Amino acid sequence: MNKVGIVGYGNTAFTKEDQKIESILHNCTNQLFKTNSEINKNLIDAVLVSTNNNSKYLSAILSEMVGIQPKIAHSIESLCNSGTNSIVSAFSYISSGLADIVLVSGAERYDSPGQILEWDNSRGEFKHPIFWASIFSKSYKQKFNISEEDLAIVSVKNHKQAQKNPNALSKKTYSVEDVLNSKKLTEDLRLLDCSRPCSGGASILLASEEMSKKITDEPIWISGIGQKTTSAGFTKNESLFSMTSTKHAGESALKMANKNISQVDVAEIHDAFSVCEPMALEALGFSKTGEGMNLIKKLHETNNFKINPRGGLIGCGHPLGATGVSQTIEIVKQLQQSADNRQLKDPEVGLVHNMSAAATSSTVLVLEK
Amino acid sequence: MNKVGIVGYGNTAFTKEDQKIESILHNCTNQLFKTNSEINKNLIDAVLVSTNNNSKYLSAILSEMVGIQPKIAHSIESLCNSGTNSIVSAFSYISSGLADIVLVSGAERYDSPGQILEWDNSRGEFKHPIFWASIFSKSYKQKFNISEEDLAIVSVKNHKQAQKNPNALSKKTYSVEDVLNSKKLTEDLRLLDCSRPCSGGASILLASEEMSKKITDEPIWISGIGQKTTSAGFTKNESLFSMTSTKHAGESALKMANKNISQVDVAEIHDAFSVCEPMALEALGFSKTGEGMNLIKKLHETNNFKINPRGGLIGCGHPLGATGVSQTIEIVKQLQQSADNRQLKDPEVGLVHNMSAAATSSTVLVLEK
Repeated sequence: MNKVGIVGYGNTAFTKEDQKIESILHNCTNQLFKTNSEINKNLIDAVLVSTNNNSKYLSAILSEMVGIQPKIAHSIESLCNSGTNSIVSAFSYISSGLADIVLVSGAERYDSPGQILEWDNSRGEFKHPIFWASIFSKSYKQKFNISEEDLAIVSVKNHKQAQKNPNALSKKTYSVEDVLNSKKLTEDLRLLDCSRPCSGGASILLASEEMSKKITDEPIWISGIGQKTTSAGFTKNESLFSMTSTKHAGESALKMANKNISQVDVAEIHDAFSVCEPMALEALGFSKTGEGMNLIKKLHETNNFKINPRGGLIGCGHPLGATGVSQTIEIVKQLQQSADNRQLKDPEVGLVHNMSAAATSSTVLVLEK
Repeated sequence: MNKVGIVGYGNTAFTKEDQKIESILHNCTNQLFKTNSEINKNLIDAVLVSTNNNSKYLSAILSEMVGIQPKIAHSIESLCNSGTNSIVSAFSYISSGLADIVLVSGAERYDSPGQILEWDNSRGEFKHPIFWASIFSKSYKQKFNISEEDLAIVSVKNHKQAQKNPNALSKKTYSVEDVLNSKKLTEDLRLLDCSRPCSGGASILLASEEMSKKITDEPIWISGIGQKTTSAGFTKNESLFSMTSTKHAGESALKMANKNISQVDVAEIHDAFSVCEPMALEALGFSKTGEGMNLIKKLHETNNFKINPRGGLIGCGHPLGATGVSQTIEIVKQLQQSADNRQLKDPEVGLVHNMSAAATSSTVLVLEK
């Protein structure tokens, strides 16, 4: 398979502001071109927009706004997993030889229609993701004897880490007590257990091996890709305390990269809700089943930013179409040693985990220097 | 570039019925599996849904409905050009080696939100495609001394051809007088000059070279792909009587296939409005500039179905996300000699032309036996 590199990126801050989707796309894409001013826009073969927004033809609109006339242009949607789906599409366009350089821009407004799971009647009236997250939390706590206080640490850790990310939505830290005392949404879920909807955008530029080396001295290579869709309906999950699609996607990605999980130095994990972080770490093999919280506690206590250095979805906010792209940018920055005061020590292998709708689908990427 | 074959397809009839988008997707996909019952669903790596519908996560929903657990699953939108964008994505997944078999299902409801061009303020209050089509018609007629009667022949021909396609929306033929006497929508456009919105779905299965040969004795190969996006806004078009994006896409596709236009035996052309057919034929090189209508008249008079054998968008109806897939299926059928009473004599090379929003973007595919 032909190599594909990541050669540039741009972010907006994640905010609660009421911005038009076109403005968000424009801002993150302009940010990319501002910090990569040597890029020849005429060489960009494809512009992919990752979003759940209902506006149409956004890739052609973005292209026109920033002065690109690509060959390929379309929007990609797979709920929260849209951004990494778009990156994998970009990879395939380049690896197949159909494109040399691909721009992926992900964006969302705080009021994204992707936040309500309208289709799933197995959920009865409970179409908001907090309901599946609540059932996951109850099941996971019961199965592995985990307390509310334990799960609250995910939120405490990720809000803490987000304070070192100027683009993050969260602007303050919280204690375990703060999390437990925050608004009770369901029996098993408090407000601070949840990532928050917000407006935000993230852009990334991918290129063929030859073009990558021309554009930058330090391309980051996508060495592993794994994806799996098990169902669309929450109740079709094999169990309510594990993530089957994440397990499959992680195994495939590591196999393709010829790596094992112990070689991964830094990871972005899809913590849409606090319970998702230990469940995903277990599914990926970072810890044994039921021991994800032990790893998280240890990292938190030692102030180790290995998992979700940018603050995770809980700390950063969760603009659906932008999230997977933003996660990938964070791993690129960590591998390039440019993550400022949240930089880990000499990471060489990074991993991105993204998923949709109670982990009914997952994408895992392995990135390397 | 690794070869990619088309190994199966399924259609619904195009109708004015009020069906749910999930039902349409289900119906065309089931049709595919009914006529290709030997397909092992466990081997399908990706499910791509082509649509302008606002429902989210449709690819995972479709996968669950038909019993597939793919790796890759997402929706693709680029207005009328969504279907061929999805087919090119499928091609790239397979050609890159990320997938062996990919299902593409395109579907739309008669009330698709993609029919109103909400974003383009250069259109003033005229956000419905009939307005750009009207300006194209006026310019094209003036520039090349074409009459209303001339343009009406496109509609007469395509309605006639649609009568041999049981899935087409049109159930009757019209005379030039009928077209001219149909409801006047603008100074330059009558109702029968327009393709009509409708509900419909079309599914196609693509596979790697090795897998294609295992699945069928007569795979159809995608030998050429060309795409171009020039802008999103109508007024950015280089001229109002030619299609720049189609010209670029056609040249690229023929070059990749190592063919010239005279070798193309059958073509599906995006006749969203009558004027689009001669303009596209000229952009693709089927005729000289300004002479597209001469070719169309000659084909009509000799009852030659070479251009738009299934009846075009004007005869078939235009369910946006399904159109590009349905066009591609028609060329597959023609090359496989299975187009029943609209079969052309021994075609070996076929072409699909699809576009969006006043030809601001185009896709061209070359297909061969």
